[in-house]
Amino acid sequence: MTAPPVSDQLGLRRANLALLLGTLRAHGPHSRAGLARRTGLTKATASSLVAELTGRGLVRLGEVAPGHGRPAQLVELRPGAVCGIGLEANVDYAALAVLDVAGGTIAQRRVAVDLAGAGYDRAVDLLAALAKEGLAATDGWVAGITVAVPGLVDVDHGVVRLAPNLGWREARLAEDLAGRLAGRPVLVDNDANLSALAEHAAGVAAGTPDLLYLTGEVGVGGGVIAGGALLRGATGFTGEVGHLPLDPVGLPCGCGRRGCWETQVGLAALLREVAPPGDPVADPATDLETRLLLVRDRAAAGDARTLAALDRIGTDLGVGASILVNVLNPAAVVLGGYFALLGEWLAPPARAELAARVLAPDCGGCRLLLSDLGFTAAVLGGAHAALDRVFADPTLAPTDDSDPDPDPRSPQ
Amino acid sequence: MTAPPVSDQLGLRRANLALLLGTLRAHGPHSRAGLARRTGLTKATASSLVAELTGRGLVRLGEVAPGHGRPAQLVELRPGAVCGIGLEANVDYAALAVLDVAGGTIAQRRVAVDLAGAGYDRAVDLLAALAKEGLAATDGWVAGITVAVPGLVDVDHGVVRLAPNLGWREARLAEDLAGRLAGRPVLVDNDANLSALAEHAAGVAAGTPDLLYLTGEVGVGGGVIAGGALLRGATGFTGEVGHLPLDPVGLPCGCGRRGCWETQVGLAALLREVAPPGDPVADPATDLETRLLLVRDRAAAGDARTLAALDRIGTDLGVGASILVNVLNPAAVVLGGYFALLGEWLAPPARAELAARVLAPDCGGCRLLLSDLGFTAAVLGGAHAALDRVFADPTLAPTDDSDPDPDPRSPQ
Repeated sequence: MTAPPVSDQLGLRRANLALLLGTLRAHGPHSRAGLARRTGLTKATASSLVAELTGRGLVRLGEVAPGHGRPAQLVELRPGAVCGIGLEANVDYAALAVLDVAGGTIAQRRVAVDLAGAGYDRAVDLLAALAKEGLAATDGWVAGITVAVPGLVDVDHGVVRLAPNLGWREARLAEDLAGRLAGRPVLVDNDANLSALAEHAAGVAAGTPDLLYLTGEVGVGGGVIAGGALLRGATGFTGEVGHLPLDPVGLPCGCGRRGCWETQVGLAALLREVAPPGDPVADPATDLETRLLLVRDRAAAGDARTLAALDRIGTDLGVGASILVNVLNPAAVVLGGYFALLGEWLAPPARAELAARVLAPDCGGCRLLLSDLGFTAAVLGGAHAALDRVFADPTLAPTDDSDPDPDPRSPQ
Repeated sequence: MTAPPVSDQLGLRRANLALLLGTLRAHGPHSRAGLARRTGLTKATASSLVAELTGRGLVRLGEVAPGHGRPAQLVELRPGAVCGIGLEANVDYAALAVLDVAGGTIAQRRVAVDLAGAGYDRAVDLLAALAKEGLAATDGWVAGITVAVPGLVDVDHGVVRLAPNLGWREARLAEDLAGRLAGRPVLVDNDANLSALAEHAAGVAAGTPDLLYLTGEVGVGGGVIAGGALLRGATGFTGEVGHLPLDPVGLPCGCGRRGCWETQVGLAALLREVAPPGDPVADPATDLETRLLLVRDRAAAGDARTLAALDRIGTDLGVGASILVNVLNPAAVVLGGYFALLGEWLAPPARAELAARVLAPDCGGCRLLLSDLGFTAAVLGGAHAALDRVFADPTLAPTDDSDPDPDPRSPQ
């Protein structure tokens, strides 16, 4: 989300409100004088802006700052009053997260359900029920609802162009979901994009302006943060990394070609290689995380077949990741999903390939990190995306009756 | 280049000066009233800003706008007064370009020279001589000098970390060149990055916010424009696309591995495949463009060996480009260097691979285009990069004595 252009006094005030709010998010509580110093605004302007942010429920006055001078109250992001809702539709689960501007979790829940098998209409019903649960969980103002979907999403129109693993094509999800939520506006975005947003907001690489997130699920997707913002490309389809053609004589891929990266390092490759026939790890009737923890236990116990598979996958993960690092030069590659769960064994061979294959000295400064958001990155990212609208334009949040500075003569 | 943050009145005025100047660049001459309408500024503010831009030599009053109302003079970018200088160091040539803010060419020259063989110090001497020639060609104010180099460049420090084809490593080019130019500041950047800037400013895909430029030279490099700005990544090393590992059993590459994209589609692959032993096309003593025109003539005459080679290279060009389109989702891929010269034969098979391999519907809207800047894209991009400093902050350009609006009370 980008703020409107700054071409007049109202635009300037909006930009400065966003500047203060972003400063509090990035650097924590400040006194009003401290905010003025850090942003280059005058103390009077900073105070006037803080009053407006307070009136909009975005900040509050908290503790008194320690120090020798006159005691000053610290301004901090206000918990609970302004929230964002994230939803996720995935192959075998749906999820909800409600976060507030202060980064606090108001609600979070995951429902195991065969969403791919349920059919589109029942899936939308279920997402709507989760959204209502989220709306009921807060008495604050809800900045927006963003749904994460594993597929190609037309963000501008809220249409899922193609989500092969869900069996959706040209699904008008934003419209269909809004219709079940009394017309409340809904945004839809790609799950890897939203996961990257979550990592940037609150993950192991939080605040890193240039990072690449890789989903480790049935498919392999990428979300790219560049210069502190999500890289969307011309039509919103960046980060389709699963079909890097790495081996002309490799295994057949669902896309119709051979040797795509996904066939080497996707979840199916892992399960096929670690599990002999009849092994419970390969039994789709068992919950996926349970099966992955079994793989983890075997690796920890030194099982040769498991370790060989993880070493091979880690190596191919590094080969593909090196391509993306050479193209994008991120400061961090964050491994998500099953890559993170088994990162202890996947990361070392992947790091070795990166070191050998990235052309820039010292890997261009890139670190390979394991996400600690597990399989919740996308839904958390949905909530962050909804909140980002307010961080870009704090005047979206409604003022309460006690707005202490409604004076329209304060120009800045 | 990004403008300083807009946190005060001076910042606002600077941002609005940049807004007007950018509007004139993107949309051509406007009356002052037209500028006000398009930017949302008041007419009084727009007039005051135009006066300042005039005083800084960036715009001038030109023709009277046609129409029924009161006649109004059109404001347009002023030729000649404010310039940017581009230089290029390449394997077998050095080049100079001087452009003004209006996009006019003040000077342009290319010197055939074995720069790789000359050694670093002599190369810097030659670049300094070209820079002096450029400075002498204009009596306007020079916004900056930017040098294009085929290699990994640390832009912040002006250091060429590694330019294998020139044999340079950890070369402090900005400092060494400034030392020969009386301390005049010099920037250094990657040639593919600068070529992408030139295409964005004035090429076949001018103004396209998301585009990918591919150099077709000894090496294959990429320059990425995303959201209207150059994508630099964490340490400035984006776009290293030549070593996409496309064939594990392919030909050995200079990087030590096999089957890199560069081994399939770089200039060496072309010359090897089209030319039997003893063929003048493979004779390094003959000028490269002459040899490429010979290849072109043979293709036009239907020579089977040439056509087979171009079809194979075009196909592999499309395979690699499809990876980049899936990752970056550009609206245009612009083929430069020899790819453009032989584009008539390379583009059709490349387009077929893109159509088959890009996952987004309709190629994600991406078109494959042939550059019309030939081998001059990088040096022109250097001149544009130097000018971009002034487009981002017009107050860098000095005011002349006749500055018609020096009144510091004009706040906006």
